[in-house]
Parts: sequence; structure tokens; C-alpha cells
Amino acid sequence: MLLCDIGNTSYHFLSRYDSFKKDVKSFDASEVKHKVYYISVNKDVDASLKNLPNWIDIKTYIDKTKYYETMGVDRMMALEAVENGIIIDAGSAITVDVKRDGVFCGGFIYPGLKAMNESYKNISSALAYEFNFDIDLQMLPKNSQDAISYGYLKTLYCEVMSHKMEIILTGGDANLFAKIFKDARVDEDLVFKGMKKFIYDF
Amino acid sequence: MLLCDIGNTSYHFLSRYDSFKKDVKSFDASEVKHKVYYISVNKDVDASLKNLPNWIDIKTYIDKTKYYETMGVDRMMALEAVENGIIIDAGSAITVDVKRDGVFCGGFIYPGLKAMNESYKNISSALAYEFNFDIDLQMLPKNSQDAISYGYLKTLYCEVMSHKMEIILTGGDANLFAKIFKDARVDEDLVFKGMKKFIYDF
Repeated sequence: MLLCDIGNTSYHFLSRYDSFKKDVKSFDASEVKHKVYYISVNKDVDASLKNLPNWIDIKTYIDKTKYYETMGVDRMMALEAVENGIIIDAGSAITVDVKRDGVFCGGFIYPGLKAMNESYKNISSALAYEFNFDIDLQMLPKNSQDAISYGYLKTLYCEVMSHKMEIILTGGDANLFAKIFKDARVDEDLVFKGMKKFIYDF
Repeated sequence: MLLCDIGNTSYHFLSRYDSFKKDVKSFDASEVKHKVYYISVNKDVDASLKNLPNWIDIKTYIDKTKYYETMGVDRMMALEAVENGIIIDAGSAITVDVKRDGVFCGGFIYPGLKAMNESYKNISSALAYEFNFDIDLQMLPKNSQDAISYGYLKTLYCEVMSHKMEIILTGGDANLFAKIFKDARVDEDLVFKGMKKFIYDF
């Protein structure tokens, strides 16, 4: 049995022994002969997997009344792994979701690092800086690089901290954001943990 | 005498009687025969005005040690108009600057409405929503439109409110952001007020 978390750019597999990624553009899913429990936010891949009986879409088994219809299934699975906490999934988008006593309380979506960087660049070449993750968020900036870094990071930090809950960081940029959310627990396998829990509980 | 605030897209003039805008691409500055005190964040326009003796660049008279070298001169002028407060200039970028007892304390830059909207769209077509400025920021969202609206607006709101100062809103989207910052004072002429004060004090 394999678990697979399919995003816009890659298939992310978890086997009993390791985890590995395959490019969405080049990987042929029909080559996999094992049973695969998967989630996907990629509509094209989703459609292509419908004819492969060993690929089982977890989404069809989720009680969506706990969440909302257009919510990404990766967010739902990360939430399944947590009883109490605020989950930050830092990928191409940053999703922030709150769960209290086993109940999903809502969440929001913030641009990921690359998207936000592009956003500043597109406004003006004068704002084309990399973000400074070593910035002191207690001090209002007096230089351009910190002015955009603070704009991106302190605003998010301020809102997340206001919930006063344990913070769990996951996603490709989790370790980078751990420099800002210093007390957060980083768990790169949170989505897989949620998928496992969901399958066993079902 | 005229005042002029030159941005990336337009010349914004203030005369004794009214204010009006001219497109950067088509307007010929040499046609103006009055004395014009101007600020500009547009490097191309800046260069073209150097040979017109009736166009006087206010920037050259600013004591920049009060601010920082790469800071937009429009932010400096808005700050000149305020003794105490947090200024939100909502344009193509949103600049947020704090002044206490006449002293600039620092500020940050956040993407403007259009840039942030593009940013979400570029991540995924599933995030291609307009922002909802009537959102209840006290409630974590449970739908996609509010999830991005909250991500854009509540994060900014949270950080701005943490300073516990009078909020002054200016810029092209000031009235829209006044729906979020309900106690803010909207002052569309803040930059011109700063320019006037600066010229008379000089």
C-alpha cells in the first residue's frame, strides 16, 4: 500500500520505507501496481486516475459537512491529524486552519513565498527584494528589504499568534517559516499522518 | 503655483481651485508654464523634468536622515502632514508608516488590491476571487472567497491595530479600506497637505 498527496507540480508518495516525489508532467500513474490511497488538488491528474482501479481517491470518503465544499483536500487531511492547534501549511499558497477540540473552526489562505515575491516585483522593480526571514519583527523597518519582509511576515505572524494556540508547521517552506514562528512544531508529514488516521478510522 | 504628485501611471496636480490627473504616457510637462513643486516616484519622468526650470523637485530639499534612502518620497510627504498616527496609503502598493510625536518610527509595504488579487490567481484558478470587503473579520472563514479576503485583510488589520494609534487612510483605495478600518480618518489629500506644509516650513 502507498499513500500519495498530489499537488499542482508533483505526486508525493509515502511507502512503508520512504517518501519520494514524481513530476506531474512526466509520471505515468498506470505503472504503479500497488494499491494507492491518494488525495489530489490537481484536477487533470484526478481525471486521469478515475480509470485506474488500484488508485483510491480518499476525497470521496470524507464527510465534507465538517469542512466546506471548495476547501482543498490536503487541508482537510492535515486537520484530521490534529485535535487542537493552528496548522500552517506553507507551500505555493499558505493555508492556515484552526481546530479546537476536534472541530474545524475555519481557516484562511495567504500567498506563498514565491507568489508574494512576484507580487512585490510586479508592483515596482524598487520592491524586487528577497524576503529576510531573520528580520526582527518587534521593530518597524527603516529599509526597503525589511519593509516588504515585515509586510509579508509580520502581518501573518500577528494574525496567527492572536489565536493563542499550538502552531504546527508543514509544507515545503515549513522550516523557513519556523524562523518566524519560533515556538511552532514542524511536522513535514502532517498530511500523510492525517491520511493514515483517516484510513484507519474509517 | 501648482503642486504635483507623480506616480507610475499619472501626474496628479493640485491647483488653488481643483485637482486633476494627467496620464504619464501622453502628458507633455513642458506645456506647463506655472511654477510646479513636485514629487515623483517615476524615474523616467524625473529625468525628463530635470531640464525644465519651472519644475522644482521637492525631494532635493528633504532631510533624508529623518527617513531612509530608498523610501518613496510620497511616503515622506504623507508623514510630513501628521504628528502622531499610523498612515495607510492604499495604492498599487500599500505603505504603512508610523509617526510618534513628530518622529518617523518606521513602516512597511504590503501589496495593493490588484497585485494581491493577481497573486492569488497566479497560484491557482481555484483562488481567483474578488476580495470581500464586507467580510466579518471576527470569524474564521469557511468558504474560498472569504478565506482569501481574510488572508489579505485580517493579517494587515491585525498588525495595524496592534500599534493602537489613530489611523489615517489615503491613496486611491482609501475608501474601500475604510470598510475594514472603520475608525480610520480618510484624507485623500494627505500627500498634498504634507507637500504644502513642507514648502511653507522650509
